[in-house]
Amino acid sequence: MKDIQSLPDHRRINIKKVGVKDISYPIKVLDKARHHQSSVATVNMYVNLPHHFKGTHMSRFVEILNRFHGSINLKSFHTILEEMKERLQAEDAHIEMEFPYFLKNDTGQGMVGINEYTCRMHGSLAQTDELTMNIKVPIYPPLTSQADNSLTSSLGRWGIADISFSFKHFIWIEDLIKMIEEVTLHDLDWSDAPCEEVGRALSVESITHAIGEKLAKNHDISRFTVTVKNLAVGFNTFATLEGP
Amino acid sequence: MKDIQSLPDHRRINIKKVGVKDISYPIKVLDKARHHQSSVATVNMYVNLPHHFKGTHMSRFVEILNRFHGSINLKSFHTILEEMKERLQAEDAHIEMEFPYFLKNDTGQGMVGINEYTCRMHGSLAQTDELTMNIKVPIYPPLTSQADNSLTSSLGRWGIADISFSFKHFIWIEDLIKMIEEVTLHDLDWSDAPCEEVGRALSVESITHAIGEKLAKNHDISRFTVTVKNLAVGFNTFATLEGP
Amino acid sequence: MKDIQSLPDHRRINIKKVGVKDISYPIKVLDKARHHQSSVATVNMYVNLPHHFKGTHMSRFVEILNRFHGSINLKSFHTILEEMKERLQAEDAHIEMEFPYFLKNDTGQGMVGINEYTCRMHGSLAQTDELTMNIKVPIYPPLTSQADNSLTSSLGRWGIADISFSFKHFIWIEDLIKMIEEVTLHDLDWSDAPCEEVGRALSVESITHAIGEKLAKNHDISRFTVTVKNLAVGFNTFATLEGP
Amino acid sequence: MKDIQSLPDHRRINIKKVGVKDISYPIKVLDKARHHQSSVATVNMYVNLPHHFKGTHMSRFVEILNRFHGSINLKSFHTILEEMKERLQAEDAHIEMEFPYFLKNDTGQGMVGINEYTCRMHGSLAQTDELTMNIKVPIYPPLTSQADNSLTSSLGRWGIADISFSFKHFIWIEDLIKMIEEVTLHDLDWSDAPCEEVGRALSVESITHAIGEKLAKNHDISRFTVTVKNLAVGFNTFATLEGP
Repeated sequence: MKDIQSLPDHRRINIKKVGVKDISYPIKVLDKARHHQSSVATVNMYVNLPHHFKGTHMSRFVEILNRFHGSINLKSFHTILEEMKERLQAEDAHIEMEFPYFLKNDTGQGMVGINEYTCRMHGSLAQTDELTMNIKVPIYPPLTSQADNSLTSSLGRWGIADISFSFKHFIWIEDLIKMIEEVTLHDLDWSDAPCEEVGRALSVESITHAIGEKLAKNHDISRFTVTVKNLAVGFNTFATLEGP
Repeated sequence: MKDIQSLPDHRRINIKKVGVKDISYPIKVLDKARHHQSSVATVNMYVNLPHHFKGTHMSRFVEILNRFHGSINLKSFHTILEEMKERLQAEDAHIEMEFPYFLKNDTGQGMVGINEYTCRMHGSLAQTDELTMNIKVPIYPPLTSQADNSLTSSLGRWGIADISFSFKHFIWIEDLIKMIEEVTLHDLDWSDAPCEEVGRALSVESITHAIGEKLAKNHDISRFTVTVKNLAVGFNTFATLEGP
Repeated sequence: MKDIQSLPDHRRINIKKVGVKDISYPIKVLDKARHHQSSVATVNMYVNLPHHFKGTHMSRFVEILNRFHGSINLKSFHTILEEMKERLQAEDAHIEMEFPYFLKNDTGQGMVGINEYTCRMHGSLAQTDELTMNIKVPIYPPLTSQADNSLTSSLGRWGIADISFSFKHFIWIEDLIKMIEEVTLHDLDWSDAPCEEVGRALSVESITHAIGEKLAKNHDISRFTVTVKNLAVGFNTFATLEGP
Repeated sequence: MKDIQSLPDHRRINIKKVGVKDISYPIKVLDKARHHQSSVATVNMYVNLPHHFKGTHMSRFVEILNRFHGSINLKSFHTILEEMKERLQAEDAHIEMEFPYFLKNDTGQGMVGINEYTCRMHGSLAQTDELTMNIKVPIYPPLTSQADNSLTSSLGRWGIADISFSFKHFIWIEDLIKMIEEVTLHDLDWSDAPCEEVGRALSVESITHAIGEKLAKNHDISRFTVTVKNLAVGFNTFATLEGP
């Protein structure tokens, strides 16, 4: 077996990132209504090592994560990053978490259910802290409540709004979702026109714009990216904007 | 290392199936319009061995497949199964293939594209041949053509029709897709009513029934199963029927 | 819009199943060590309707599910099925749940982590109750603990064992996982032979057999199916057995 | 229905990208051995519009793509981008394609098969052309040929090498794959040591380094990123480097 670890370590091809990926992990997320909600996250943790390091203790990532018993909030995120930087003697530290977030569905759609939104958090710590949130909000043409129609169905799924943002002041995940759904469910009244006309009037550009306008007015949000995707026959269309 | 292969081979827990799975394989499928269309299949091949066999030559499955250079039709399917049965001394032989099938989109939706349908074939050979086809046909509320509106979008995706069938006489994949789309695109005229009314009138039960009626009238089809799924907020609804 | 709901309802193409699918739902599962563990399930619920029914109240499925607040155990499963049968006036009722199940990893692999196993439960109620469990247990060649080697890695993933079973007496999920891992981690000692020899000795047939022998000895299990899959270059191999 | 298209168009939240996504499309790729190989790509096409544009003709993307009948090479990529820029009056144009690429497996693993590698190309045209390739090469511990052992299995999958690169002079996909596999199959001789020792010696850092060294010596490659991922129990480890 050739000793590939003793290969000369040329400066220009130093390892940039090293870490653990795809850890499936039960978490508890802060939740405006119920204080804590249980979910299951997929976690990545990695660091940037100084040039003189050749390897790292991969087990330490998981040890640090275990110490927090899945309790995820702004404070624990910051502490995890600080411990990663210190214990792994790293220049910077990163943690990414993706998880389903649940909200009771009370949109008057005729069925009470639990809606699922995919959330992703990316925290990093170099000289300063940074936290980016990403939320995917599915877009459905809303139907009004229909008490006793046993054959009720939905109009299907129109598409998805994919929002990334950083914030100056803390924002609840449910408040951001509500902002987006005010645009997609309420500002756009799908129901009082023939289906075909609705289809003509709505476009990924117009909905992207409407969501962008809404986010630009919120002073807690510092930067954001909005992508809206529409499911169409044979391909999907999309538009992206950045703000402010 | 314990010799687990010499464990006593009790009759009641004999191996039932043995084979290869998830082979990604470039294929050529018979196509009504163009004779052959290229696609990429995921292939499973397996056999049922007589009780006195303890193992098989896994490489033979792939060797047999390679001999046909990806040319897939009723005849090659049958020959592959015969070779499997013979060369592996098997009681019965199975081959499953799943692949995207492409059709030019000329539904007058304002954009010319290529539509993709997921197809699956399951052929088996014991005493007699059997072949089951499965086709997934996405359901979209159709919009009529809109020559010069640059902001055009679709109404999204309503759901999917999932059809399994055996046949007495050969049926082209495109003919079966056309049968389904005649129901979902043409028999259901989505456009001349307010969106909300359309949503109330359509249900997985009614569309399942309409497709079932259509297939029951076709004398080339011997048995079929229809499942229609509607994408809704928080969950999907579905209905299944079998015929005839 | 054609009135497809008034199509004649020929007996031979009656709806067989109707229900809701792909509900993402936070659950609490009974857990030997900690009493309850939080997870997120994907839930399907459906019924078989009598012939004179033309549609059903889809919202009732979700209402019934909501009443149990995600608390999943043998008793709640049975009660959900009874309520479905009664409130939907169904001939039989089905509920399927798939969720990740977590166990602390103390296999001495050099890193303490949390292992994830995909579980699926399928409960049905016609004249009598039935419950089938399915558990997927990944198979890794084990390495012994390595306290201070910073460059530690694993030997990768060998494959997966996929076990379905019904039981006469209740079995903890962790007890079943332990049974499987005793075979894949302990009965097979991978480490004291050259890698290549290990590769030659292990086969999907031999591991399927070893797991089958183990399950056949357990008198709480009434019926079982074992499929073992090995990840290989270009394709995977697998073997399946049924018992007892 | 509110007229959301007439909302004031503040400069700071202009649409950045607009286009089509997830088009499933049959393609023909240039192939060193056989001239052309058929595959199926997932295609994204998008442009950056000047500020005074409010919408675009989504159908034009697909029209342009259709003109090339799926024939994909450096020249057609460039021509597609030029047409997109011109016909959509865009500031810059992008096309992304992901597709499985097939190579006959002649690594002496005892079974002749077809290996699949996931490839992605991202071409863009602003003032100048740019093309980035990405190839995912699975890593398996190699076993030497075993003519007549019917129970042969593999040692499983160790991990994956994920390579992105731009080039100064054209490189065949198969030549790049061969470079990577020379490191993972030949430079690392897995077989003549006990399994456990192999597991200790190999690490994502060492293999990342070995691949980086190899790519740095190739003068056709201008820039590259290497990520190597190892599948481990409960989580995966990874390392990333950039060069030159």
